[in-house]
Amino acid sequence: MSSKVSPLAPQSIVEVPPVEGVRLGSVEAGIKYKNRKDLTAIIFDVPTTVAGVFTRSKCSSAPVDWCRKQLEKGKARCVVVNSGNSNAFTGKRGVESVKLTAEAASEAFGCRKSEVFIASTGVIGEPLNVSGFAAHLKTVAASAREDGWADTARAIMTTDTYPKLATRSFEAGGKTFVINGIAKGAGMIAPDMATMLSFVVTDLPVAAPLLQKLLSRATGSTFNAITVDSDTSTSDTLMLFSAWAKGVKPVKDEKDPRVATFRQALQDVLHELAMLVVRDGEGATKHVEVTVTGATTVRSAKRIALSIANSPLVKTAIAGEDANWGRVVMAVGKAGEPADRDRLSIWFGDVRVAHAGARDPGYSEEAASKVMQGEYVPIRVDLGLGKAQARVWTCDLTSEYVAINGDYRS
Amino acid sequence: MSSKVSPLAPQSIVEVPPVEGVRLGSVEAGIKYKNRKDLTAIIFDVPTTVAGVFTRSKCSSAPVDWCRKQLEKGKARCVVVNSGNSNAFTGKRGVESVKLTAEAASEAFGCRKSEVFIASTGVIGEPLNVSGFAAHLKTVAASAREDGWADTARAIMTTDTYPKLATRSFEAGGKTFVINGIAKGAGMIAPDMATMLSFVVTDLPVAAPLLQKLLSRATGSTFNAITVDSDTSTSDTLMLFSAWAKGVKPVKDEKDPRVATFRQALQDVLHELAMLVVRDGEGATKHVEVTVTGATTVRSAKRIALSIANSPLVKTAIAGEDANWGRVVMAVGKAGEPADRDRLSIWFGDVRVAHAGARDPGYSEEAASKVMQGEYVPIRVDLGLGKAQARVWTCDLTSEYVAINGDYRS
Repeated sequence: MSSKVSPLAPQSIVEVPPVEGVRLGSVEAGIKYKNRKDLTAIIFDVPTTVAGVFTRSKCSSAPVDWCRKQLEKGKARCVVVNSGNSNAFTGKRGVESVKLTAEAASEAFGCRKSEVFIASTGVIGEPLNVSGFAAHLKTVAASAREDGWADTARAIMTTDTYPKLATRSFEAGGKTFVINGIAKGAGMIAPDMATMLSFVVTDLPVAAPLLQKLLSRATGSTFNAITVDSDTSTSDTLMLFSAWAKGVKPVKDEKDPRVATFRQALQDVLHELAMLVVRDGEGATKHVEVTVTGATTVRSAKRIALSIANSPLVKTAIAGEDANWGRVVMAVGKAGEPADRDRLSIWFGDVRVAHAGARDPGYSEEAASKVMQGEYVPIRVDLGLGKAQARVWTCDLTSEYVAINGDYRS
Repeated sequence: MSSKVSPLAPQSIVEVPPVEGVRLGSVEAGIKYKNRKDLTAIIFDVPTTVAGVFTRSKCSSAPVDWCRKQLEKGKARCVVVNSGNSNAFTGKRGVESVKLTAEAASEAFGCRKSEVFIASTGVIGEPLNVSGFAAHLKTVAASAREDGWADTARAIMTTDTYPKLATRSFEAGGKTFVINGIAKGAGMIAPDMATMLSFVVTDLPVAAPLLQKLLSRATGSTFNAITVDSDTSTSDTLMLFSAWAKGVKPVKDEKDPRVATFRQALQDVLHELAMLVVRDGEGATKHVEVTVTGATTVRSAKRIALSIANSPLVKTAIAGEDANWGRVVMAVGKAGEPADRDRLSIWFGDVRVAHAGARDPGYSEEAASKVMQGEYVPIRVDLGLGKAQARVWTCDLTSEYVAINGDYRS
């Protein structure tokens, strides 16, 4: 664990309001870390509908397999999360640990096993000892509170240097609702999946199939548009719970007028959490936005944007505050997507550095350098081929990233 | 440029023998570097046949475009190479520079422009000033010698910390022939193309179509099986010249019995050069071999091997001498290729650390750590699915890589 807080950390931790019927509790289970809470649960007084997006890794963890299975029933009473051990690549013993955790939670919170969702994050391949979970979860049940959000956000951290929370309120059908989310993640972050651990709760009642549809769609431009190091975790889990507010008719159809404001609030919360993850990228000193326009398709634009965002040479140049646009050209060229060298334009911030297949004649090294010195570095590439575009976010690659990952078996 | 020689550098520089009718000359053209030769040519007294493999970048450099075009004619009288500027993404001016270079070489060496091959390596996007090339190449012509191989290998270096040469002799049809090769490259090295700059010369006469076939095939398991940083250059060029030895009947057919020994010698020279490139990877302290067996197809095995070899988390763990096999599991899982977590086995050297979807019960952390402390780290993954396999090579990811690429606009 890094003891140094990211220079890109938010000034203060967001305070999220309580959601009626949702309580959170955390305990010290001593899984790996000392003197901190590492086992936590979000408990729903009545069953919620639930949607989830998980890692596409072929080596997914036992908890991910469990959640995927329970998700088919679409009902949740709690989600139990531990940090310090991901219970991934732990064979039959890992499957057994998940079952025991579900039993312990079912007893502690008075619900069915199929209503228990489980997530684990930390070291891969170490057996997870859950023998104490039955007692620990009883403590969690007894101490859980509606204002436990920040504690839970802290309990799920591993190499994170700050807890990640976001909230929005929105009007729907003349009533005010809330949507709260938490996330963890700093390394082994790559898109094209639901990334890391993130749990989002709203009190707008939404039927499970629609909830899933809205979540899957919002993921593409938020969590699936960030990358720290191009390495996809085995445990990535993003879940959205709809804790039905009393006396509100559930939203079942996408044409329901209440969907619009909820969709926007969901998008905002996921975006904010995703940005918090990138800004806590291991060793990060810069927050980088990569926009690709003028592509033939959105898929192609996104692949080129990711080729730039994942390039070690681009990322180290940004760390060195070097406006090295030649490496951006390289990353466009290697993506394997339609591109025409002689139509390419590149900007750092508002400074156009390359145009029509060559260095921009009016390009000022000084102006470009100034952009690189900022904490937020926007890079834009126009391919000049079509109208499709995509945007992704990443951080720089520093010696600190190497130090963190050369020293710590996470 | 790094002034520190790679800890993985060879003990001594290979001496390569002369090839009859092949002379090499180098001069200081002052393109970027001071007090060193940076413009060089390999001159063939009579036209050779020639084969080439080039970058698959969509933003290929002007010299690459030129070589591709001349290659159709299949004849070479010289190859002119400069370091310090790659003449890539330089628009119409870059195309003009290439033409002027071909004219200057044609005059200096007394050949057709279409027989001139050109390569440039160095910074991307800076116009290359070739106004002095006509005079410089006349100096090269006057001073070129059959024993100029080492000088030429040095003249093409950029961030390389040592010159890269390899040679083999082989018997074919009762006669002894030679094959010499040189290469440069340390960063922006990624496979799935012909990587960096490399020039190989043999005196066995081989017809151009067969030469191309043999070269393309040998590239797959040599230059296209290495990666330093997953970043594909815009200037990658590998060329093979067959300088026809006097009185030897040319090899035109793959069934010619002389092909077997030539193929092996070619494979050996390309492999040796490719390993020299990896061992000079920017900031490298470890040479890593990744073998994937038990895959459903060779293509799939290679993609998984590259997913491991390109993973920043695997590479930083190796830099830290940490036997972190959980990250190997992660890299297998993210590759998107067929894999079954519960059939996976992983070895560091001869130490099996994981088996059947979990940590190997007999695994010794000490024995695995010992493997990691070596200079050459072999990693093997058996997928347990089929019979296909592939092997790739890489180096570790260190703070030195970040420092080199954060400071130097290459």
